[in-house]
Amino acid sequence: MAQRDIDVECREAGLRDGIQIVKTFFPTEEKIRWIRDEAAAGMPNIQVCSFVPPKLLPQFSDAAEVAAASLKIEELWVSALVPNLRGAEDALRVGVHEIDFMNSVSESHSMSNGRRSTAESLAEFKRVVALRDSLPKDRRFKLASGFATSFGCSIEGNVPHKAVMAAIEKFVAAGTQEVVIADTVGYGNPRDVKELFTQVIKAFGDDVLVAAHFHDTRGLGLANVYAALEAGCRRFDASLAGLGGCPYAPNATGNIVMEDLVFLLEGAGLCTGINLDKLVQVRDIISKNLPDEPLHGTFAKAGYTKGFRPASTISMAAE
Amino acid sequence: MAQRDIDVECREAGLRDGIQIVKTFFPTEEKIRWIRDEAAAGMPNIQVCSFVPPKLLPQFSDAAEVAAASLKIEELWVSALVPNLRGAEDALRVGVHEIDFMNSVSESHSMSNGRRSTAESLAEFKRVVALRDSLPKDRRFKLASGFATSFGCSIEGNVPHKAVMAAIEKFVAAGTQEVVIADTVGYGNPRDVKELFTQVIKAFGDDVLVAAHFHDTRGLGLANVYAALEAGCRRFDASLAGLGGCPYAPNATGNIVMEDLVFLLEGAGLCTGINLDKLVQVRDIISKNLPDEPLHGTFAKAGYTKGFRPASTISMAAE
Repeated sequence: MAQRDIDVECREAGLRDGIQIVKTFFPTEEKIRWIRDEAAAGMPNIQVCSFVPPKLLPQFSDAAEVAAASLKIEELWVSALVPNLRGAEDALRVGVHEIDFMNSVSESHSMSNGRRSTAESLAEFKRVVALRDSLPKDRRFKLASGFATSFGCSIEGNVPHKAVMAAIEKFVAAGTQEVVIADTVGYGNPRDVKELFTQVIKAFGDDVLVAAHFHDTRGLGLANVYAALEAGCRRFDASLAGLGGCPYAPNATGNIVMEDLVFLLEGAGLCTGINLDKLVQVRDIISKNLPDEPLHGTFAKAGYTKGFRPASTISMAAE
Repeated sequence: MAQRDIDVECREAGLRDGIQIVKTFFPTEEKIRWIRDEAAAGMPNIQVCSFVPPKLLPQFSDAAEVAAASLKIEELWVSALVPNLRGAEDALRVGVHEIDFMNSVSESHSMSNGRRSTAESLAEFKRVVALRDSLPKDRRFKLASGFATSFGCSIEGNVPHKAVMAAIEKFVAAGTQEVVIADTVGYGNPRDVKELFTQVIKAFGDDVLVAAHFHDTRGLGLANVYAALEAGCRRFDASLAGLGGCPYAPNATGNIVMEDLVFLLEGAGLCTGINLDKLVQVRDIISKNLPDEPLHGTFAKAGYTKGFRPASTISMAAE
């Protein structure tokens, strides 16, 4: 995998978080076209699927096929979400670069979303670590951990930073290589984001990569991105056209919008390696396959500011 | 005017910036109802109208009447926009607390929007200063200056921070008491916002109040708010339901959404004195009178996060 000369790494999460609650099956070949076209626009990292039981989420019944096709795309970092060891074994069989193990900081969310306690979640994670470590070094996947409800829980309400720190500490000790601080329910506020990311990066930033996964449910998604940037975070999840939502908030937006995120970063002089014009064109694949889903995003509507110079273009021109 | 114990002052700009390009005349008594209800929700400051020639903007033909009614509302700070000395004289006749003199940093925007050069604009401002200073001290209005295109211009493109600093310096020297850094066309990026507000507050913050006026045209409005907060800004314009738009970007949103701004600030522990529940109810006045205008805002759709404690409530409970 060639290393791109970028300042901030964006990761497309729409093919996992975006479509997981969509009832319409997104055809396999169209998922692959989305991944190919977005990779061609310069997206360095795509979470291409979730290895979950098809009867639970039929949308991901083609996970192995989608992941295999993604692995043929040059320079694309292919990650996949898994909820348990079984999913990790499936993901390993295909050979994805990175496995993202999901867990919740909040006990109630862990029980309702993952049907297990946080202690059971950690125990299962350790089994995935053992799987990774049983492999020859050159065949090992990268193992990341997602921490849902890091800024609050729709069942418990407030989630103290101390609880998040304690959870992360356990997963880092167990062998995670990346920590994805996730605000799945759109509870984060920029003040809290800056505080928590500062604490996490200070405590664990030398050992693991610290990434952010924000939702825009209450309009603060990009403000939270800027707060995390200020704290030193350099890896962000987002989804094209903000695809995805929250089953508990019918009218609410879901993931932060990738195009707007890239516009923010490139305008702030931070190179993402992504071509915004090409990225916006990929929206057509979503509208074609999910005509009933709203396409979010202000950049796609309002376009460039006059004289806008994306950091990536400047950096490429300087090479 | 009683001083409220607030950390950040919000100002409703919808009655000026929000409705100025709306073709439907917003009935005078309904404007007054909007102002009254929003003041009752705790809004400390409302820019209630613009004193411009009615033939140019018929929407403001009732400016004097609206301003006079607003002045009867206890504890409300009443400000009005004026483009020139004539407008200031009209505003003075009604007796508003604050007169906001608009000008543009960009020469092209100044010519196209105000039909005068920036030098002529400064000369006109000095006439308004002379008007203020000719009054007995206890009858003087507060005089603020707005700096449009501070983050870029839809005609000229990039506007260097140096140009903004130079413009502000001239108006401060001439006698302005408040500087409103305005991103009328939605060009601002949080990195630039933090840089410019830091510079302006450092250079002029001891002498004048420094306020922010952001638009959300490209989705970065609230990220820019957080960046300005980080730089020390404590006064923000916004409009209820994000009313307003840009005549040059048909689908684009206009001013940042007041409800979302208040949600951000209160969630960050910053007291605004505003009751979010009451504020959201005022949206009905807009939808009733302007049924064709889209109502923006995510807080109004998604509601509170579970366990949310607004800073103002905590502070009131502690009193």
